Amino acid sequence: MTILRRNFLVAEGLVKGTMTLIDQARGETLYGRMGPGTESSGGSAANTIAGFASLGGTAGFIGKVRADQLGEVFRHDIESLGVAHYTPAATEGPSTARCLVLVSPDAQRTMATYLGISTELGPIDLDQAAIARAKVVYLEGYLWDPPRAKQAFLQASRLAHDSGGQVALTLSDIFCVERHRQEFRELLGSHVDILFANELELMALTQAKDFAGALAAIRGKCKIAAVTRSEKGSVILSGDKTTEIKPEKVGQLVDSTGAGDLYASGFLYGLTRGLDMAACGRLGSLAAAEVISHIGARPQVSLKELAAQRYPKLMKG
Amino acid sequence: MTILRRNFLVAEGLVKGTMTLIDQARGETLYGRMGPGTESSGGSAANTIAGFASLGGTAGFIGKVRADQLGEVFRHDIESLGVAHYTPAATEGPSTARCLVLVSPDAQRTMATYLGISTELGPIDLDQAAIARAKVVYLEGYLWDPPRAKQAFLQASRLAHDSGGQVALTLSDIFCVERHRQEFRELLGSHVDILFANELELMALTQAKDFAGALAAIRGKCKIAAVTRSEKGSVILSGDKTTEIKPEKVGQLVDSTGAGDLYASGFLYGLTRGLDMAACGRLGSLAAAEVISHIGARPQVSLKELAAQRYPKLMKG
Repeated sequence: MTILRRNFLVAEGLVKGTMTLIDQARGETLYGRMGPGTESSGGSAANTIAGFASLGGTAGFIGKVRADQLGEVFRHDIESLGVAHYTPAATEGPSTARCLVLVSPDAQRTMATYLGISTELGPIDLDQAAIARAKVVYLEGYLWDPPRAKQAFLQASRLAHDSGGQVALTLSDIFCVERHRQEFRELLGSHVDILFANELELMALTQAKDFAGALAAIRGKCKIAAVTRSEKGSVILSGDKTTEIKPEKVGQLVDSTGAGDLYASGFLYGLTRGLDMAACGRLGSLAAAEVISHIGARPQVSLKELAAQRYPKLMKG
Repeated sequence: MTILRRNFLVAEGLVKGTMTLIDQARGETLYGRMGPGTESSGGSAANTIAGFASLGGTAGFIGKVRADQLGEVFRHDIESLGVAHYTPAATEGPSTARCLVLVSPDAQRTMATYLGISTELGPIDLDQAAIARAKVVYLEGYLWDPPRAKQAFLQASRLAHDSGGQVALTLSDIFCVERHRQEFRELLGSHVDILFANELELMALTQAKDFAGALAAIRGKCKIAAVTRSEKGSVILSGDKTTEIKPEKVGQLVDSTGAGDLYASGFLYGLTRGLDMAACGRLGSLAAAEVISHIGARPQVSLKELAAQRYPKLMKG
């Protein structure tokens, strides 16, 4: 993570607010041009799981790292939250993925990602027993980029449904939606029960003319669609119902990285505890508000304690 | 950096607010027991230099890293601020130093440091031309722990004085003062022009009964003594004069790591630009206030821009 110098994004051909895939060489060049940074574990779904665990949820994670320094830090950070990391660190192959995150003065983030060994995730990496035990299997749209991960994705979703679980998908990024629009649309009809998206991603998916049209287009395509809208809060569609959630107040908006990921943390925590849509949305907003108040996409406080202070009734029992 | 679980320090035999030296094995055990963390470059004097450069000052750094991932990140972070890192990365020997920083809910930090290759710093690593060019050579008390660094310290201070420069020393840590009290006292009379210390370190150095006694004991022992007192601000002794500096307001106190280091950044920036003691102290307080508002011991914004907003007159010209 680094704070951005003026005009840096334009000079580097990066599009503000989006994720660009890069190779290792481009990563090194870009890093050399960036200002000083800080490092923290990340990965969209891993951030969501970290937040879910920080709220007190029981979770596991499937995703590949290499047995290198970043891989060890990744494992430490997620396991120390009580999350089971089901994928052993690889002793050969590309290095652990890394993402250069550029934070603009308005707290918007722009990402350049080297996927590294993450592209090698495949069906063989699925822990079938863990998936069968799960109430929800959460999958990120980014997995549609590496081909073998897509197969793992589909197999995990079948396993989840066969054992009575639900499947959640996040659309991840507007460019990711552009790359895989048709397949994502088909997934919604076949594999996905719960959809997470931000406003722009939903517009890209539906190609609707406005936000109301996008909501109309997505309604009924899956059981629940939770759509985040930054400072406008979020909208949740469930069957015929529409639930609007106000944004949580943020003391100091520093870095929006992980906002969507952590919204999903809170939402899924509420959902797996049987709370209603409004409660799920409020917990999502609270977790997102914490993560955008500092640099980095992982919570820096116990979300369980934070939620117990803010919403004591929801967190009881 | 990690946020601390309750009773962790006591269980691990660490003393809140201080720095303990550990070996690699202890570091790995301790890391395994810590919660999730974030990583950022550090090192007391390096933090000071990073802050000095962020204010717009011209600076170089002498200190050893290994050619490993932490070493590369360290070099990137300091060089991208325009600081010349005069010491090439070693291709053999122990790994780059690392410090496990535990942040308590009251923002106090407790450190466990594995010095790694830092202990191999010696007189041969001094860039004599760079030292001769410098207005101020800034040395950290921590250098008194590894024996060859002490020799480098003394030689650097002689070089600085021979070329008309000044020598600044920070006392670093109360345990560090306890280990080297007599030698630090002798240094003040012989090598050090500008002393940085916090209240506890100064009390340990002088063994005075109270703060007033400590100030009286140190007055005249060097040209300038700048003593930081956390929320009480700072006191600067210069000749017969005493200048009291109010603390800068902090929006959100998160992590005190680097507070003293960044106070020295601002102070030295003012001093090398010929500002008076009050201005030096205010710039020190401002830099310290920024660094304690977030996790990590390096500034996350341009201190030059921050200071220009807060003290436009001081930063002009």
